Amino acid sequence: MTITLINSFIVAPDKEEEFLRTWRSTIDHYATAPGFLQTRLHRNTGLKDTTFRYVNVALWESIDAYHAALRDFIPAGQRVPGVTAHPGLFEVCVEVNPGQQQSAP
Amino acid sequence: MTITLINSFIVAPDKEEEFLRTWRSTIDHYATAPGFLQTRLHRNTGLKDTTFRYVNVALWESIDAYHAALRDFIPAGQRVPGVTAHPGLFEVCVEVNPGQQQSAP
Repeated sequence: MTITLINSFIVAPDKEEEFLRTWRSTIDHYATAPGFLQTRLHRNTGLKDTTFRYVNVALWESIDAYHAALRDFIPAGQRVPGVTAHPGLFEVCVEVNPGQQQSAP
Repeated sequence: MTITLINSFIVAPDKEEEFLRTWRSTIDHYATAPGFLQTRLHRNTGLKDTTFRYVNVALWESIDAYHAALRDFIPAGQRVPGVTAHPGLFEVCVEVNPGQQQSAP
């Protein structure tokens, strides 16, 4: 079953460059891992709540695939001082497309 | 330009049902709004960071479409006592698919 990692980052302004550099090295590792499906790093536009400067939303084939990719690897969020991460593992419970509403498959 | 609303919810256990009911009424409103593209409500599996019980990730055609849908409407996150929302508006800055890495279009 597909699992979604949603990681909300608080990033001090003077740590942004270091965070992005470290995050890209994390993704280079994940992008070749079995079961990795997709990731999108989102940058806050500043137009509403600005608690989180970046949010990463990554899709994995299964929880096992995610854990295997993480074995003996420390992700970016835990390597850059001044960056706070909230790496949660989620399942989609409701998906809605224009004009209709449905529960998760 | 597509904009992504990422709203991370802290939900007290005894408020979960009320939150979900209110959130669904919010989505019924959004699903028919011009420029609404998709939304996925994610529920935390409890397998990692559990700060946020639910995270909603919604895509909108533009910031104007989002603001128009919000005019004279109060979203769920602000209507249920005991629920804390972090509604941020984001742009994708990096998208990665298996085996390769690219910046945002």
